[in-house]
Amino acid sequence: MSSQLAPVGLADLQRPVRARLERVPQELHRIVEADFGLIAQVNSHLFQMQGKMFRPTLLLLADEATGAGDPRAITLAAVIELIHVATLVHDDSVDHSVLRRGMPTINSLFSHQVSVIMGDYLYSRAVIELVQLDDLAPLRVLSRVTNEMTVGEMRQLLAHEPMEFTEESYDLLIQAKTASLLSGACEVGALRASPGERTALRRYGEALGMAFQIVDDLLDYVGDPNITGKPTGSDLREHKVTLPLIAALPRMDASSRAAVETLMETAEPADGQIAEVVAAVAEAGGLDYARERALRLAQQADGELDALPPTPARDALRAAITYVVDRRR
Amino acid sequence: MSSQLAPVGLADLQRPVRARLERVPQELHRIVEADFGLIAQVNSHLFQMQGKMFRPTLLLLADEATGAGDPRAITLAAVIELIHVATLVHDDSVDHSVLRRGMPTINSLFSHQVSVIMGDYLYSRAVIELVQLDDLAPLRVLSRVTNEMTVGEMRQLLAHEPMEFTEESYDLLIQAKTASLLSGACEVGALRASPGERTALRRYGEALGMAFQIVDDLLDYVGDPNITGKPTGSDLREHKVTLPLIAALPRMDASSRAAVETLMETAEPADGQIAEVVAAVAEAGGLDYARERALRLAQQADGELDALPPTPARDALRAAITYVVDRRR
Repeated sequence: MSSQLAPVGLADLQRPVRARLERVPQELHRIVEADFGLIAQVNSHLFQMQGKMFRPTLLLLADEATGAGDPRAITLAAVIELIHVATLVHDDSVDHSVLRRGMPTINSLFSHQVSVIMGDYLYSRAVIELVQLDDLAPLRVLSRVTNEMTVGEMRQLLAHEPMEFTEESYDLLIQAKTASLLSGACEVGALRASPGERTALRRYGEALGMAFQIVDDLLDYVGDPNITGKPTGSDLREHKVTLPLIAALPRMDASSRAAVETLMETAEPADGQIAEVVAAVAEAGGLDYARERALRLAQQADGELDALPPTPARDALRAAITYVVDRRR
Repeated sequence: MSSQLAPVGLADLQRPVRARLERVPQELHRIVEADFGLIAQVNSHLFQMQGKMFRPTLLLLADEATGAGDPRAITLAAVIELIHVATLVHDDSVDHSVLRRGMPTINSLFSHQVSVIMGDYLYSRAVIELVQLDDLAPLRVLSRVTNEMTVGEMRQLLAHEPMEFTEESYDLLIQAKTASLLSGACEVGALRASPGERTALRRYGEALGMAFQIVDDLLDYVGDPNITGKPTGSDLREHKVTLPLIAALPRMDASSRAAVETLMETAEPADGQIAEVVAAVAEAGGLDYARERALRLAQQADGELDALPPTPARDALRAAITYVVDRRR
């Protein structure tokens, strides 16, 4: 996506919290530790798949930017990542995904059964850890967030009807599925800040999260498969309706609309069929529309940060917006 | 199973808490309510499958027997049932079960995907409800219990090696899978009782829960299919190793042991093959052994109740032991 700024890497925005962030994986290990062999095995595979720690980064930056200095921040950052991983384990099982972060998923390496149980294991460990903090505040935020995420997953199951799935439904879907956890990470990092700062960070996370998901959905149309790691048009192949298509449909001519309908009715669409719809979506302005929405959300997120004092951590939260909007994968 | 007492029905032991118990389903409705169509649909199917409410009964009896009169007891009883239902939804999905309580399971009626997400939805609603009680005590017990149940499910996946699965592993399995939630129900019902009563009820629930699972596993060998609703030897057919087989194996002759090994290696064992192993297990005393263990656990549960004052609710908790040990399904 276009931007006037120099490219922002994850390392740039992690700089103000680098020292604490480096302690998160060890904290995660402690929380999920199990003496039962099979669970320990799955855990060790999950640790090899370790992701970009974007959510823990946001939580720690929110803590830093509000000067809260919450001594529980590293634990909370680990719990946020744990909830994220638990969700991915169930998602991969629900979607029958074979690869995640370039490695075999739990369902493909072990079994569907192990995935379902392991997701439950990880989530219940997260709740135990939150209970041990002896404070209901983080639990209040994160139990709501995890429930919203399940509603988002349910909405996702129904997002396969291009002629019926509206932008409003799409917004509800991405809010629940993606924005809620990013927003929760920011809010939990600001639990000890002033109510105004806490609200600003919650809203920042929400707008950032929605932009994040729109960019994700855009990359499915325009991304370089060598960088994203998945072929262009994967969502269309799985009959997933996302913003570019929703925005393009009303502006398409009859023959393009017919091509969309045919694709959606074809169990295994051919590459040419997918390429044709991708081109029609671009032609009808669907990609531009989605890009503009992502940029508007980015501006909204940026505006929320004005409520915080100027610090390197606030700069990093700004940089996180650029990172989300400009990313290529 | 043999007993000197007259048969005890569920209604008998529910009598002291009948009025409050009748309010639990409505409370459950309130907690799981969803404005999203698909979730509401699954909920309404789950309500049609409503079970025996054994765990809410135990919770309310524990409250009554300790004179705690906790005003949150009905909500807590609904949450216990909700956690139980969430677990069943995932279990049925993991086991690919088609029927539950004589009705189609969520995975068979909707899909495997809906089951995984719905289990997560229900469990996160339970956590939200507990957080709203503004007290960490019930959460402390129930987060530990739900985590133990996932470990139990993992152990279950490995309980298919008759020559290696020991009675010790079996005990750990049934403690985690079944006894933990019954014990948790009793303990949460006694959160406002004295520490001594609370401990007694936790231990009562634990012994009762282990007896409950052993009787379940016995019924698989000796139950009347017309009453239990499933054919004799279902566990053997699924290569599940339970206490009767574990106890019988060391006392079997070489040819019976060989029959067991052959059955375990046969993907779809024939009825005759199963009947032969059932007979060999009985012959070697496996059923008697399991029955005796269940009765010993029943006595242990009974002994714990001496810590409580004599009340109709305590009598009902005693009756619950007889109910568990004597049940035919």
